[in-house]
Amino acid sequence: MARFDEPLELACGRSLPAYELVYETYGELNAARNNAVLVCHALSGNHHAAGYHSPADKKPGWWDECIGPGKPIDTRRFFVVSLNNLGGCHGSTGPSSTNPETGQPWGPDFPSLRVRDWVNSQARLADYLGIDCWAAVVGGSLGGMQAMRWALEYPDRIRHCVVIAAAMKLSAQNLAFNEVARQAILSDPAFAGGYYQTRGEIPAQGLALARMVGHITYLSDHAMANKFGRDLRSGSFELGSDEDVEFQVQSYLRYQGSQFSGSFDANTYILMTRALDFFDLAREYDNDPVAAFRRARCSFLVISFSTDWRFSPERSREIVDALIAADKPVTYTEIAADEGHDAFLLPIPRYMDVFTAYMQRVGVDP
Amino acid sequence: MARFDEPLELACGRSLPAYELVYETYGELNAARNNAVLVCHALSGNHHAAGYHSPADKKPGWWDECIGPGKPIDTRRFFVVSLNNLGGCHGSTGPSSTNPETGQPWGPDFPSLRVRDWVNSQARLADYLGIDCWAAVVGGSLGGMQAMRWALEYPDRIRHCVVIAAAMKLSAQNLAFNEVARQAILSDPAFAGGYYQTRGEIPAQGLALARMVGHITYLSDHAMANKFGRDLRSGSFELGSDEDVEFQVQSYLRYQGSQFSGSFDANTYILMTRALDFFDLAREYDNDPVAAFRRARCSFLVISFSTDWRFSPERSREIVDALIAADKPVTYTEIAADEGHDAFLLPIPRYMDVFTAYMQRVGVDP
Repeated sequence: MARFDEPLELACGRSLPAYELVYETYGELNAARNNAVLVCHALSGNHHAAGYHSPADKKPGWWDECIGPGKPIDTRRFFVVSLNNLGGCHGSTGPSSTNPETGQPWGPDFPSLRVRDWVNSQARLADYLGIDCWAAVVGGSLGGMQAMRWALEYPDRIRHCVVIAAAMKLSAQNLAFNEVARQAILSDPAFAGGYYQTRGEIPAQGLALARMVGHITYLSDHAMANKFGRDLRSGSFELGSDEDVEFQVQSYLRYQGSQFSGSFDANTYILMTRALDFFDLAREYDNDPVAAFRRARCSFLVISFSTDWRFSPERSREIVDALIAADKPVTYTEIAADEGHDAFLLPIPRYMDVFTAYMQRVGVDP
Repeated sequence: MARFDEPLELACGRSLPAYELVYETYGELNAARNNAVLVCHALSGNHHAAGYHSPADKKPGWWDECIGPGKPIDTRRFFVVSLNNLGGCHGSTGPSSTNPETGQPWGPDFPSLRVRDWVNSQARLADYLGIDCWAAVVGGSLGGMQAMRWALEYPDRIRHCVVIAAAMKLSAQNLAFNEVARQAILSDPAFAGGYYQTRGEIPAQGLALARMVGHITYLSDHAMANKFGRDLRSGSFELGSDEDVEFQVQSYLRYQGSQFSGSFDANTYILMTRALDFFDLAREYDNDPVAAFRRARCSFLVISFSTDWRFSPERSREIVDALIAADKPVTYTEIAADEGHDAFLLPIPRYMDVFTAYMQRVGVDP
């Protein structure tokens, strides 16, 4: 846990007087301090990216497939930093933290954040850890957006930028799905305008619905067909009332929703989806991504997945085209994978190989 | 309005003692009674398919582009019948009708229906109208499923089957979206287990959310991008708080949702989506669509739209492949259209041409 007492000016015009960031590190920082890799998390991620945090953990961190000895981000070479973003709900200062001015949880009064605010707070974490320049900033989905923003905002503090399953901005369809998710939360009476914490309840159903919508967009049609098809979990088509008939996929979604609603904060979910909505890499560069990327001084690895329809390969190719036009070194691979957007979390062999090969080229002192 | 006093046995094992179907007709039934076309509606459709119903109507019927003089279903040649399906909320007997046993609205106690129940009730409507055999049964989306079921259940009562933007069964992803829509309704406290009518309120927010989710799946990513892009309805990215920033697409979706929730019944929505979920053309034929279609004795026109991702062209090709293998006459066209699933409602020139040309080949006496 790192505490920062200097106010952080935010893109929305407000400032946070002080904040804490919870983080984990894996591997050792070398003497030259040039082997540090920042891992940025996606919408519902947290700082626990690899390994087992406590003996009670049933599962390792969310990107354990990619971080560790012999893995793409090899902890024998790299010092890996993974934080819970500002505004999160896993230990860093966010809507469920106490507002020092009121002594109550911030709730909906927590300032809205944009990707650049995260990048600025991460730069302070780098200062705190004594890291002048990241060997690489790496992220999938919303994490990839942070990596790209790093390349533009701190061109001297990042040598490699790894952008996986991301996009330079959300499409209208992406915006639409986020709106449904937020409306599901906002219309849950338990949300109480965001002041649910002080009332001792949570908008569990709204949050579950939001997750269900999101979850559909993380999986491909094909992956869902393979995993569930039209299999029934209970009931039969021939007997009894239709209300007793339950498809596996429907039961699975409800389970995912209810699990999520018990472990994630609704105000954080709203904050994170808004940050996604507002992210637009090239907006302040006259909507010209080539002009935006001209600021960058790092090398890029861009990866997409064939069946990802949240941020499709076409969106990654837009990034690559802009990088090429801006004369930046870029490696691009589209990985054939059935799993949709979620593929970026999975140990797909060709993905692991490409990612590993690239990271091996990232120079670090011994 | 037609009233049927003979009980209708339903697929769920229950029966409806009596029911009413509201319908409209366009054109004239010829003396040979062989020019009748049945139009089946989709999830949220109704009997008012063409023309202006009353002087107060702001818009013509939902398929006015396709029904009328000189249009694909040319009312100078055809006698067109369009009904509100059983279980609907636009005048036919459904969950908002009075349960004769209790004197209260049926609500959630209305029997669950499957596509075959609609087809059976439509066959009785044909009897009532003195139509032994339809020149054609025509429908888009869920309407296309009814048309296919007609071909299997009443092979002697249908000469042409027109299946537009449909599928032989829902995919896991289709099932997933329907589940989210239903959960949105079920989790609205105003739904009250389906007994909202007797309490004098409606689950407006749940229904609006359900519609928002559905609406996204009716439009293509591309259509949304063209129509809205990332345009703002209010606020700006530079000034003020992020809460004031509203994207056009998000405002549009909320508007669509709230319009829908004022005009559609929640129990009907649940009933209709379940009928969609359970539709599986070939289930009782050992899951062999070729065996299923062997029962048919009509000719088929199958149409799909290139950017339809709810029922993609691939799903239509499955129908066509099964029809060919079953040695049935079939005409198939994939229409290049940006508008996604909604394209089936729109006057896309090539679509109109193909549909018109096919219908002109449907033989009728003068």
